[in-house]
Amino acid sequence: MSKPVVVRNVELPPSDAVAALEKYGVSTVHEAQGRIGLLASYMRPIYPGATIAGSAVTVSLPPGDNLMIHVAVEVCTKGSILVVAPTSPCTDGYFGELLATSLRAHGVKGLVIEAGVRDVGPLTEMKFPVWSRAVSSQGTVKATLGSVNVPIVCASASIHPGDVVVADDDGVVVVKRADAERVAAASKQRVDKEDAVRKKLASGELGLDIYSLRAKLKELGLEYK
Amino acid sequence: MSKPVVVRNVELPPSDAVAALEKYGVSTVHEAQGRIGLLASYMRPIYPGATIAGSAVTVSLPPGDNLMIHVAVEVCTKGSILVVAPTSPCTDGYFGELLATSLRAHGVKGLVIEAGVRDVGPLTEMKFPVWSRAVSSQGTVKATLGSVNVPIVCASASIHPGDVVVADDDGVVVVKRADAERVAAASKQRVDKEDAVRKKLASGELGLDIYSLRAKLKELGLEYK
Amino acid sequence: MSKPVVVRNVELPPSDAVAALEKYGVSTVHEAQGRIGLLASYMRPIYPGATIAGSAVTVSLPPGDNLMIHVAVEVCTKGSILVVAPTSPCTDGYFGELLATSLRAHGVKGLVIEAGVRDVGPLTEMKFPVWSRAVSSQGTVKATLGSVNVPIVCASASIHPGDVVVADDDGVVVVKRADAERVAAASKQRVDKEDAVRKKLASGELGLDIYSLRAKLKELGLEYK
Amino acid sequence: MSKPVVVRNVELPPSDAVAALEKYGVSTVHEAQGRIGLLASYMRPIYPGATIAGSAVTVSLPPGDNLMIHVAVEVCTKGSILVVAPTSPCTDGYFGELLATSLRAHGVKGLVIEAGVRDVGPLTEMKFPVWSRAVSSQGTVKATLGSVNVPIVCASASIHPGDVVVADDDGVVVVKRADAERVAAASKQRVDKEDAVRKKLASGELGLDIYSLRAKLKELGLEYK
Amino acid sequence: MSKPVVVRNVELPPSDAVAALEKYGVSTVHEAQGRIGLLASYMRPIYPGATIAGSAVTVSLPPGDNLMIHVAVEVCTKGSILVVAPTSPCTDGYFGELLATSLRAHGVKGLVIEAGVRDVGPLTEMKFPVWSRAVSSQGTVKATLGSVNVPIVCASASIHPGDVVVADDDGVVVVKRADAERVAAASKQRVDKEDAVRKKLASGELGLDIYSLRAKLKELGLEYK
Amino acid sequence: MSKPVVVRNVELPPSDAVAALEKYGVSTVHEAQGRIGLLASYMRPIYPGATIAGSAVTVSLPPGDNLMIHVAVEVCTKGSILVVAPTSPCTDGYFGELLATSLRAHGVKGLVIEAGVRDVGPLTEMKFPVWSRAVSSQGTVKATLGSVNVPIVCASASIHPGDVVVADDDGVVVVKRADAERVAAASKQRVDKEDAVRKKLASGELGLDIYSLRAKLKELGLEYK
Repeated sequence: MSKPVVVRNVELPPSDAVAALEKYGVSTVHEAQGRIGLLASYMRPIYPGATIAGSAVTVSLPPGDNLMIHVAVEVCTKGSILVVAPTSPCTDGYFGELLATSLRAHGVKGLVIEAGVRDVGPLTEMKFPVWSRAVSSQGTVKATLGSVNVPIVCASASIHPGDVVVADDDGVVVVKRADAERVAAASKQRVDKEDAVRKKLASGELGLDIYSLRAKLKELGLEYK
Repeated sequence: MSKPVVVRNVELPPSDAVAALEKYGVSTVHEAQGRIGLLASYMRPIYPGATIAGSAVTVSLPPGDNLMIHVAVEVCTKGSILVVAPTSPCTDGYFGELLATSLRAHGVKGLVIEAGVRDVGPLTEMKFPVWSRAVSSQGTVKATLGSVNVPIVCASASIHPGDVVVADDDGVVVVKRADAERVAAASKQRVDKEDAVRKKLASGELGLDIYSLRAKLKELGLEYK
Repeated sequence: MSKPVVVRNVELPPSDAVAALEKYGVSTVHEAQGRIGLLASYMRPIYPGATIAGSAVTVSLPPGDNLMIHVAVEVCTKGSILVVAPTSPCTDGYFGELLATSLRAHGVKGLVIEAGVRDVGPLTEMKFPVWSRAVSSQGTVKATLGSVNVPIVCASASIHPGDVVVADDDGVVVVKRADAERVAAASKQRVDKEDAVRKKLASGELGLDIYSLRAKLKELGLEYK
Repeated sequence: MSKPVVVRNVELPPSDAVAALEKYGVSTVHEAQGRIGLLASYMRPIYPGATIAGSAVTVSLPPGDNLMIHVAVEVCTKGSILVVAPTSPCTDGYFGELLATSLRAHGVKGLVIEAGVRDVGPLTEMKFPVWSRAVSSQGTVKATLGSVNVPIVCASASIHPGDVVVADDDGVVVVKRADAERVAAASKQRVDKEDAVRKKLASGELGLDIYSLRAKLKELGLEYK
Repeated sequence: MSKPVVVRNVELPPSDAVAALEKYGVSTVHEAQGRIGLLASYMRPIYPGATIAGSAVTVSLPPGDNLMIHVAVEVCTKGSILVVAPTSPCTDGYFGELLATSLRAHGVKGLVIEAGVRDVGPLTEMKFPVWSRAVSSQGTVKATLGSVNVPIVCASASIHPGDVVVADDDGVVVVKRADAERVAAASKQRVDKEDAVRKKLASGELGLDIYSLRAKLKELGLEYK
Repeated sequence: MSKPVVVRNVELPPSDAVAALEKYGVSTVHEAQGRIGLLASYMRPIYPGATIAGSAVTVSLPPGDNLMIHVAVEVCTKGSILVVAPTSPCTDGYFGELLATSLRAHGVKGLVIEAGVRDVGPLTEMKFPVWSRAVSSQGTVKATLGSVNVPIVCASASIHPGDVVVADDDGVVVVKRADAERVAAASKQRVDKEDAVRKKLASGELGLDIYSLRAKLKELGLEYK
C-alpha cells in the first residue's frame, strides 16, 4: 500500500468564484474552461434539480470499506464537497443518511462518489445531493486505511483537494483552484454571449447564419439535394 | 467517407395518422405493427411524462461533431422529430438548450439521439423532450460533414426520413411512412380490445381463461403440485 | 428442460414481520440480517418513492416468453410480490399495465423482474410499483413453459417462494421466510440505535468518536499532516 | 408479429468481387467503401486468424429460439455466410457444432450472430469461423417463427440478403451487393497506395510529411514547446 | 455480517460421474440436465482449451479481500475446484500464481471466480485453468472474514459445496451432487444421439427433416416465397 | 478548448529501471509500488504473451480524430510507449498497421490506447503489441488538434510524459519517473521473497501458516465446523 495520510489543511478556492461557478452550472463551466475536467457520464444525481459548487475534500479508499469517509468528516469545512473514489471499481453503498447528517452538521454541501450510495429516499427528503455511479444497500466495513486530501482520479477526472467541484443534472466537473476565478469570468462571458444567440435562435434565425457556417459547409463539399 | 448530402424535401406521413400514433403511445404502436421498429432500450427520456410523434428528420454525423445538427435545423418543419445517430458509439453532449430553442422556433417536437445530451435541467424546464443514450456536458466541434435525411440505423432500428417516430416513457419506436395509417388503425383496434380485457382482469378474471391458455398448458405438459 | 411445475400452496411469512420489514426498508433490513440477500444494483424502480414488502411468488421463464406470468397470477394471494427471472439475460417487456391490473385484482403489491417492463407511464399513474432491469416495449410470446413457486436466482440473489421481498428506492432485498421475525426485530434494534447516533451526528459529534475509531486508525498507522 | 417469411431465391453478389473483398479484409474494405457498413465492435471472432467473405443469408428470430436457423440451412448455398439477429438482445447459444456441420455440408463459410454461440472448442477444431456477441451454453427452443432472407439490422448495421459480408480479426463489415465490385476495386487502390506509404514509414519518414499535415497544424494553431 | 464459518467436511460427488462429466463438457452437460445451472456468460477462461470437472469448494468473501481463499486451501482435497464469489461486484485480482501453486499442491484442478485474476501469463504457462469475470493486477487485503463451503450464488448460479463444477471454453456449469450420476448418464445418451445426427447432417441431410420440423412450420404458418 | 500543445522534450526515466520493470511485469510492479497506477481492467492486449516497459509519450485527442497520433510520432524516441486517451469515450480504430510501422521505425515499443485499434491480424504478425479498450475498423479523421506530452488520465490512471508504462497479459501500470528506481528495487525484493514462498507453497505448506494468519482468524471470530 502507498502510505495512507490525511492532510488537514487545504488551501480553499476563492468563495466568490465558487458562488459564481455554482450559478453557471456544469455545462457552461466545462465549456468556459476549455472542455476539461468533466467526470464520466455514469456519475448521476440521485434526484433531479440540485446544483452545487464547493471545495473538494478528496478521499481514496479500498473497495467495500468506508473507514476513510468517517475520517474525512473531521477535515471538512463549510462549503466542502466530499469527493470519493475507490481504488478499484466498486458499487457498494459507502454512504447513507447518517453520514449525510454528519456532513451537513459540518457544512458540507454534497457528495460525489464513484461507487454506490444508499438511503436515497431519506437523502432526497433531506435534500442532501449525491452524484454516484450506483445505488446499492450493500454496506461496507471499516477495516482498511486510505487517504484524505490527496490527488485522486475520480470517474476519469484528476481532482486535487481544494479544487472546485460543480455538480448538477448534467453531471460533475472539476475546476482547478488556481483557475476558479478565470473560469468564473469566462463562464459569465459565455452566458452573456449565449443570451444574445438565444434571442436570435428563438426568433427563427439559423445557427448556420449566426455562426457563419455556410462557407465552411461549401468548402467541405456538402451537397444539397 | 461516403458522400455527405442534405436532402431538403422529404415526403411527410399523413398528419392524422401521426396524431393517432401519438395518442396510442410506443408500446401499443409497437405491438400493433407486429413488434418491429423498436429502438434499443438504452434510449431513455431525460424527464418522465412526455409523449410525442412526428416525422423523422434523420442525421448521420461523426463522433464528437455536431455540425450537421446545425445543418438539419434548416430542413426541419412543423411536426418534425430530429433523429440523430453518430457513425460510431459516442456519449458526447451534441445538443443543449440553445439548439432546442432553435428547433422549437422551427416547430420541431423533440429529439431522439443515440449519443449524449446536456442542459437537461433547462430542457426539462422548457419541456423540450429528448430521448438519449447518455447525459454529458462534453461538447462537440463543428469540423466534419455528415448527412441529413438519409436512411440511418439509430439504436438498432432502421429509420428513413419521413418515417413516423413515436416516443414516450417506454422508449422510441419507428413506423414506416407507408405503414402509418394502417398501424394507427391497428393500434385503435388493439386499444379497444384491451379496454374489454382490462375490465375482465380488474374484476379478477384470469388471463388464463380470457386468452384460453389452459388447454395449451395441458398440451405442453405443465404439472401442478 | 428441467420439468416445469407450478406449486400452488406456499407457506407464507408471518404478516406482522412483513409489515415491520416494509416499514424499515431495504437498507436497514439488509444490514439487520447480516448483509445478505441483496439483489444486484441494476434492479431499479420505475418511479421513486414506493416501498413494499410481501411474500414472494417466484417465476422462472424463458427469454421472450411470458406465458408463466399468466400462470402465476392464479397462485398469487393478497400481499404477494411477483418475482420473475428469465433463464437467460433478456430485456424484453414481459409485463405491462394489463397484467398489473390483473395482479392488483388478486392483491399483489408489486413486481420484481430481472428483465424489462413496459407501460411505465400507466403503471406510474396507477401506482403499481415495479423493480426491473430495463424498460422495453418489446413484447413476448406465450409459447414455452417455465415454473412457478420454485427456488430461483433473481439478480444474483437466491429466492424461495414464501420468502419476504422488500423493495424501495434503494433496491430489493430478500429475507428468508424463517428469518423474517428475527430480522424484523433486528431491524427495529438497528433503527433505535441509529436514532441515537443521528442526534449526535446532527449536533456535530464525529463518527470517529461515536464509533471509537481513533484507536484503530492509530493502530493501522494513519498519518495526519 | 410481422408476417414470417422465407425468401428462397436471392440474387448473389459477383463471385470475383467476393473473393477480392475476402483478400483485402475488413478494415481495408470498410475504408474503401467510405466508412459505412461496420458492425458494432462487440462482434468478436471465437478464434483468431480467420478471414471470410460471402453472400449474406439473413435470419431474424426471437430471443431464445433457433427454429429459423434450421429453416435457413435449406436456402444456403455454396459461399453463403449466415447472418443472424434476434429481435431483442439475447446471449443464448443459438448455434453449435452440429449446426456448423450442417452448414458446412451446404457450403456455408461461417456465421455472424448478434447473440451467443456454444461448442467453441469443437468449432475451433473444425475451423468453422463464428463472430458473435457472446459465448454461452444456454440452449434455445424451436417454438416460434421468424424470417429468412429479409432485411435485418445486425449489430447496428443494416444488412440485406445477398449483400457481401466480410469478417476477420478486426470485426465484420457489410458491402451492399450492388457496391461489391466498386468497393473491391477501391480496396485494391487503397492497398496499392498503402504499400507505397508503408515503405516510406518503414524508412522513418513521418506521416506529417507524407500526408502534408504540417500546414494544417499551423493553421489550426498547434503550439510546439 | 452473517456469521462467518468454514465447513471442513463436505460430501463429495461420485468420482466416476465427475470423470464422465469432464469428458462431456459444459454444453452437453447443461443440456443433459435440463438447461439449468449455467453460470453467466461473462465468466471466461484465461486461456483456451482447458476442460475440467471437480467438486466445488465454495468461498464467499468481501470485495477486495482474499483472506478466505487462503483459508479455503486447507479444506480443499484432490479433485476440488475452488469457486469464489464476492459479496458485491468486484474486479480485483484476488488470485495469482502463488495461490495456484498452493492449490495445485493440494490437488485442486482449477478456479472459478466471479471477480478478477492476475498473473495470467504464469498461470497459462503452468496450465492452471481459471474462469473469471476480469483480469486485474489490483491486489486485495486480508482483513475481513467470509465463509467457506456454504451455499453461494456465483455468476447467477446457485452452488453448494460438493456440487460438481464443469468448465471449458463454453463457460461453467454446476451439477448438483445428487444429480451427478443421472446427468452423466443423460450426457452419454445425448452424445450418442448426437453422433448419429452429426453423420446425417454431414451428409447434407437437413435438420428440418431429421427433427421433423416441417409440419410445425406449416402449422405455425411460415410462408415461403 | 484548452490550448493544444506539443512538448518536444521530456525527461526520460533511467533505462536500467525501465529494463528491470519490464522484467518484473505488471502485477509485481503494481504491488511493489503500493498498489497505485493501475489502468482499468478493460485495457486488454490484442494478443497474449507480450511484455513491454517504456517511457510514456502521452496523447490527448478528440473522439474520432487521430491527427495528434501523427504529430506524436515525431517526438517519440527509442524505447517510447505511446499512451493515447480520447477526451470522451470512443471505440474508433485510431491506429493500425501503418502507424505501427511508423512507430517501430522510430523505436517505439508499443501502444496503450483507451479507444479502439484495427489491423489486429497484421499487428499480431509483426508483433507490435497494443493494449486497447476495443478492436474496431472504424476509421478516424484528421481535423482537430489535441496535445502531446501533457499530463493525461488514461483508463482511470493519471499519466505524465516520461513516466514508465509497463504492460503485459495482466494489463497496464504506470510508475512515476521519479519512482522508477525505487519501484524496480522493491519489485526485486518482492520477487525474491515470493520465490521463497513459492517453494513452501509448492511443498504443500499453507499460506495460513506462512503468513501467520491463524491468530487473526481466531481474533476475528472465524468458526470451523
